[in-house]
Amino acid sequence: MNISNSGDKVAGARHGVPQIDLALIHYPVLNRKSEIIGSAVTNLDLHDIARAAKTYGVNTYYLVVPHLDQQSLVNDLLDHWLTGYGATYNTKRKEALGLIKVCDDLDCLYRKVTEKWGARPTVLATSAASGRQVVGYGEARKRIQRGHPHLLLFGTGWGLAPQVMDRIDGVLPPIQGGGEYNHLSVRSAVSIILDRLLGPGAE
Amino acid sequence: MNISNSGDKVAGARHGVPQIDLALIHYPVLNRKSEIIGSAVTNLDLHDIARAAKTYGVNTYYLVVPHLDQQSLVNDLLDHWLTGYGATYNTKRKEALGLIKVCDDLDCLYRKVTEKWGARPTVLATSAASGRQVVGYGEARKRIQRGHPHLLLFGTGWGLAPQVMDRIDGVLPPIQGGGEYNHLSVRSAVSIILDRLLGPGAE
Repeated sequence: MNISNSGDKVAGARHGVPQIDLALIHYPVLNRKSEIIGSAVTNLDLHDIARAAKTYGVNTYYLVVPHLDQQSLVNDLLDHWLTGYGATYNTKRKEALGLIKVCDDLDCLYRKVTEKWGARPTVLATSAASGRQVVGYGEARKRIQRGHPHLLLFGTGWGLAPQVMDRIDGVLPPIQGGGEYNHLSVRSAVSIILDRLLGPGAE
Repeated sequence: MNISNSGDKVAGARHGVPQIDLALIHYPVLNRKSEIIGSAVTNLDLHDIARAAKTYGVNTYYLVVPHLDQQSLVNDLLDHWLTGYGATYNTKRKEALGLIKVCDDLDCLYRKVTEKWGARPTVLATSAASGRQVVGYGEARKRIQRGHPHLLLFGTGWGLAPQVMDRIDGVLPPIQGGGEYNHLSVRSAVSIILDRLLGPGAE
């Protein structure tokens, strides 16, 4: 089963539906010593992030992972929930996990989203690194509402490698909750960022 | 080691620091058939929710779990991160997991928070059930900013049992992202709700 070649072109902007994708990057990312590594896929990253993506109308949740054994693990998990026993046990989980597509690398990811939207989307990541173009949540939200395609990149491990950051258009500010502590799980960070960009907004 | 009797009284309101706690309820909750069950503690609920709680300045993250084997598991996990190898391996994780306290049941939880804040806090939960007093996120946010103590209850399994809902003061609206799908993980829901109530607000 080839998991990385599904072209899913979307014809033009659909009114009211955000043109947004997210990608969880497993390679290249950093370890705690800032060395470049490939990280392992975790089951709960698939489930939690897919459920958040489905809730907020994300088009596709891309997993960028080059290792064949990891891709095979993802396939087994998805088969269970999409066509196996899980598909009848929990149809809501099937809806969410159906958003997942696997890419070998960043080139594959960029090619797929460009093909889908008809042009390269604006690519944003979160990072505490200075020297990058910062795009506020309010500004990004408005751009998405105006129909501009966006791709959000999230890193595993200790964050995205420099060669990934060199290929993005801007960074969203780090999520802070009032204090100094800023060490959310990627699952929490994705959820909060989707709510800020695509949620109902201030009540 | 007794994990359920730590009284941590806080003397009055501290300016600018929200008086807010959250509790993850493992019993009594519902299963998919709406039967009352006790759910198992999961490692990632501890980590993800503690990290979000620490980020947003939550005072204490209570785990309500009556089963002694589950309490023992929680103790082992906390010992590793608070005093064992984990405490030196990752001090940020230690800071977050240090917010966790275990309660046997809802009576224990209510007693602890009432003792801590000097009065019973406003208790809010999330629920799709109708017939409850709904408190909007904006309204709850203002009340917290004005210094009123709040306790947020989150259910595991298929949600909080009726006998828990009978003892709360109001429900926060379900989290929706624009469509019909509303099946976030509890880890995502906690993260988003904390950001809505305690985050920087609209930019």
